[in-house]
Amino acid sequence: MMIMASQGPVVHAHYVAGSQHPGADDPRSDIGRLLISCPDRPGIVAAVSRCLYEHGANIMESQQYSTNPEGGTFFLLVEFHLPGLARRKAALELAMSGIAAAFSMTWRMTIAADRKRMAIFVSRSDHALRELLWRAEAREVRADIKMVISNHETTADLVRGWGIPFHYIPVSAPTRAQAEAAQLALLEGQVELVVLARYMQILSPGFLEAFGHPIINIHHSFLPAFAGGNPHQEAAERGVKLIGATAHYVTADLDAGPIIEQDIVRVDHRCSVDDLRRMGRHVERSVLARAVGWHVDDRVIVHQNKTIVFA
Amino acid sequence: MMIMASQGPVVHAHYVAGSQHPGADDPRSDIGRLLISCPDRPGIVAAVSRCLYEHGANIMESQQYSTNPEGGTFFLLVEFHLPGLARRKAALELAMSGIAAAFSMTWRMTIAADRKRMAIFVSRSDHALRELLWRAEAREVRADIKMVISNHETTADLVRGWGIPFHYIPVSAPTRAQAEAAQLALLEGQVELVVLARYMQILSPGFLEAFGHPIINIHHSFLPAFAGGNPHQEAAERGVKLIGATAHYVTADLDAGPIIEQDIVRVDHRCSVDDLRRMGRHVERSVLARAVGWHVDDRVIVHQNKTIVFA
Amino acid sequence: MMIMASQGPVVHAHYVAGSQHPGADDPRSDIGRLLISCPDRPGIVAAVSRCLYEHGANIMESQQYSTNPEGGTFFLLVEFHLPGLARRKAALELAMSGIAAAFSMTWRMTIAADRKRMAIFVSRSDHALRELLWRAEAREVRADIKMVISNHETTADLVRGWGIPFHYIPVSAPTRAQAEAAQLALLEGQVELVVLARYMQILSPGFLEAFGHPIINIHHSFLPAFAGGNPHQEAAERGVKLIGATAHYVTADLDAGPIIEQDIVRVDHRCSVDDLRRMGRHVERSVLARAVGWHVDDRVIVHQNKTIVFA
Amino acid sequence: MMIMASQGPVVHAHYVAGSQHPGADDPRSDIGRLLISCPDRPGIVAAVSRCLYEHGANIMESQQYSTNPEGGTFFLLVEFHLPGLARRKAALELAMSGIAAAFSMTWRMTIAADRKRMAIFVSRSDHALRELLWRAEAREVRADIKMVISNHETTADLVRGWGIPFHYIPVSAPTRAQAEAAQLALLEGQVELVVLARYMQILSPGFLEAFGHPIINIHHSFLPAFAGGNPHQEAAERGVKLIGATAHYVTADLDAGPIIEQDIVRVDHRCSVDDLRRMGRHVERSVLARAVGWHVDDRVIVHQNKTIVFA
Repeated sequence: MMIMASQGPVVHAHYVAGSQHPGADDPRSDIGRLLISCPDRPGIVAAVSRCLYEHGANIMESQQYSTNPEGGTFFLLVEFHLPGLARRKAALELAMSGIAAAFSMTWRMTIAADRKRMAIFVSRSDHALRELLWRAEAREVRADIKMVISNHETTADLVRGWGIPFHYIPVSAPTRAQAEAAQLALLEGQVELVVLARYMQILSPGFLEAFGHPIINIHHSFLPAFAGGNPHQEAAERGVKLIGATAHYVTADLDAGPIIEQDIVRVDHRCSVDDLRRMGRHVERSVLARAVGWHVDDRVIVHQNKTIVFA
Repeated sequence: MMIMASQGPVVHAHYVAGSQHPGADDPRSDIGRLLISCPDRPGIVAAVSRCLYEHGANIMESQQYSTNPEGGTFFLLVEFHLPGLARRKAALELAMSGIAAAFSMTWRMTIAADRKRMAIFVSRSDHALRELLWRAEAREVRADIKMVISNHETTADLVRGWGIPFHYIPVSAPTRAQAEAAQLALLEGQVELVVLARYMQILSPGFLEAFGHPIINIHHSFLPAFAGGNPHQEAAERGVKLIGATAHYVTADLDAGPIIEQDIVRVDHRCSVDDLRRMGRHVERSVLARAVGWHVDDRVIVHQNKTIVFA
Repeated sequence: MMIMASQGPVVHAHYVAGSQHPGADDPRSDIGRLLISCPDRPGIVAAVSRCLYEHGANIMESQQYSTNPEGGTFFLLVEFHLPGLARRKAALELAMSGIAAAFSMTWRMTIAADRKRMAIFVSRSDHALRELLWRAEAREVRADIKMVISNHETTADLVRGWGIPFHYIPVSAPTRAQAEAAQLALLEGQVELVVLARYMQILSPGFLEAFGHPIINIHHSFLPAFAGGNPHQEAAERGVKLIGATAHYVTADLDAGPIIEQDIVRVDHRCSVDDLRRMGRHVERSVLARAVGWHVDDRVIVHQNKTIVFA
Repeated sequence: MMIMASQGPVVHAHYVAGSQHPGADDPRSDIGRLLISCPDRPGIVAAVSRCLYEHGANIMESQQYSTNPEGGTFFLLVEFHLPGLARRKAALELAMSGIAAAFSMTWRMTIAADRKRMAIFVSRSDHALRELLWRAEAREVRADIKMVISNHETTADLVRGWGIPFHYIPVSAPTRAQAEAAQLALLEGQVELVVLARYMQILSPGFLEAFGHPIINIHHSFLPAFAGGNPHQEAAERGVKLIGATAHYVTADLDAGPIIEQDIVRVDHRCSVDDLRRMGRHVERSVLARAVGWHVDDRVIVHQNKTIVFA
């Protein structure tokens, strides 16, 4: 089944309820994004582009991909400019609904200025957390960090120094269910994305289901190599000449969810396991930041455990 | 003024006259490419996609770019599938002509199976030449190498061993005009692209004008740094930590033509000038091969001394 | 003339006076570094390694480079382990003095645990500053940040939040001399390195001379391309496919000092000048952090406006 | 047990018997390389450098590595200049023998001008083969390619066109033992290295033992990910964003031998399995060429299924 990153059961109510509406003076208020997937067949682009044109929208960017022009699945991202978009969005969505029905589309329309609300889960390591805090402030990752949840108190001062609520929820085997319930209570209705920024606890399938929104994890390895908890030790033992990091959506199948982004750094025989960890941190933070950035800009679609990234 | 790589004065006669028509059993025979540029305004994609749809074409890939949605220039690459394209191309072009007139488009339609005919100019170094010979045979660069022209005899056996005509035309200051005339006589009507694969002579403005088709050069530096003839010596003297290569279209303004592709490799204090040359060769051949590959696949547009590469 | 990064007129008094002596329980307290340059000739390594051996030191790492085995300059970095180094350093230095005299060496011996004291100069952009603060705390850059000096107040809270003194010294053309005097008064005896982490003012030759210690700058371009103050604008105009950053020592010759490190990131036609600035920031901070890290670990030697980096 | 790449039972007879002695006018005739491993303890460098000095050798380059200064294994590469090396090598080796005995060294001394003799095994794909032929001719890989052995006739003309003997030895399950015997008969006494340049047959443990020299393989994946025969198919199914290649020594444990070099290239959702194969080819050839180049320059040491590469 094709699912979309950041999907919700009702398309446009999702954002009305959940996102931040910036002031009308944000130039991104008039930029819309349309993300579509449907069975491939001729006429999709013609129908969508005509609909946008008739509503006065100018297409600024368009990216598409088809798994197979004959019988495959078609994916389309359109970014368009439409003055007064907030006011005219309902009418445009109504028109799109007809096209969507005719082409059996799964689709979603968002306003570029609306920022997704996210929570960050972290354990002791602060590098990925810091990178996200920093890029969110610099508007490179266009999201609102609503809270940070940690099973350690290590980063509490750091987070609160940024004016962001920090919640300490310790986790151990016997208290896991209780901890997850506490986490869910904090997240409920507050965020539409969780980012695991080196959170060293496994989330249960029940948590994933109850949360119901995308979760992005950073794994400190170039998956599928060295899946598991201590990739740098394994990398040192195997004597690889590259180490990497992988940002992926979290599924019930550990370390096997759809990959959004990966990168590597060269290493050599002189690197100790600690060196690999240190060098890996820099890869992890840039890989995670890019993945989260694309996600919150609606540029990632999940299809059959793989991602289409319209970067 | 906007010019397109590989443009010709009459759009569709260009390929009828000039390219290789493969057998009808090539699956790429039914794949068309439409390359368009025009003043940006709403409705372009709608008009083009409707036209393709009405002719039964299925859009496989679409990339677009606008320098400015308000008053800028719009560029569009569409790759489409249309069974029996060769037979139906004239009708499709006729329909496109009307749209083109309405939107003041510069445009071109090609068949993916048609391979551009190219000549390679080379001096003594054979690395870039070899890379092109090899990628053309492996169908990674989809072009026909019709001839190699050199001011040295060094690569004659190599070229002829591939079954490709080799022409030795020595060049010196007093004989340059005569040499260029001989080169032009060989090229006339035979090729629509010249690639300078480390050709160490400067082509005169008169040659460029007389040839009238695109010329791609590989410069052994990451331009604009170390423009000129001995970049590795200069790089060693400046103590840079990266050296690079640049593939660009040749214009009358030496080393200043539109850049298609660049890449670099890390170097360090231990590298002699010869080491830099040796390491640079590997960058040069991959950069040139990528640039030529994109060009012959109609993925490069020149606009105001810059390129749009729909890679 | 050959100069060494971080050199001082009297070799070992330098660190006695200037650096932080960690507790004796730091395992790096027993690790020494010997940095040597001298005219190349046979026997240097033999003499140095024998001296270390006779004092009970075990060589852990050794890197060397010669500009020319016949008549060139020889450079040597030796990292060694010697239990009780702090106590035995004077004796070892005395022995080394004899060898140094015999081979006309310029040399320096440091203890790995001693951290260099540095000041950061910054203007409005905080990305390079943040990276240094984080890496210093994470012990990836082994230096003590004693103060931050800025011509703007933008980063005051950030810096003070890290518990580091922040000094606001505005600079304008008429007040430059006065501002530099104020800066020098703060630096005097407090630091042995200044890092310009996107400090947009030019330091006068008089300042460089009065400070007398190394100054590292991050330039937001892959020098020598786009030297000057607005490289991203120039890069966009030239249509390059790579942008970069360069960390270099500051000399009186603007943007022309010895290069320590460079790196690049790929860009394409879609990137606006702002995109280039944003993408460039990530390259700048990693390039600067690597350069500063090598410098404070005594791994950089300056020779004839180039650097030897024993990374 | 520590073994060295290119090791032989008797150290200096190895090259007398097996390598190409170039004319005395090769400047590399006076450059020697000493490769040493032994239990780490103080005094090794002092003893070796003194020995070289006393024989009039000037150390040009030295690289060393210790797995652990206390009780680990020490590795040393020294490149030195000694006029009349061929004539004086025996005396130097005699002196080194004493030191080697005192420090329990495994060691080897070679002359830089001596080129290793290698055979290339290949199946149908010619890209890695071509790269090695070209780099050997360009003296970037300093080895003599004595023969190419293939289980297909595809590359016969290519190889013979370079003036290199080509041997067609088909392999199937029932004839494998017979084919390997034929291969060994060709290799016996002729080469000291086999390179598997995309040879798609598995060599039996018996073959490895009978050959007794190093064998380098290029695997078309970033091992340990996607070990096995069809990594690009698996990579496409997993949706990775990087694909790679790995050059490693062949051991009886398939795909698990010591890794010499790895590299990757970025891919995205648009890449078909064929695209991955095509893009992978370019990584494979550069990775293999670098690995072979280091090996034949005596810059690779194998230690506990990992490599130390003194690149």
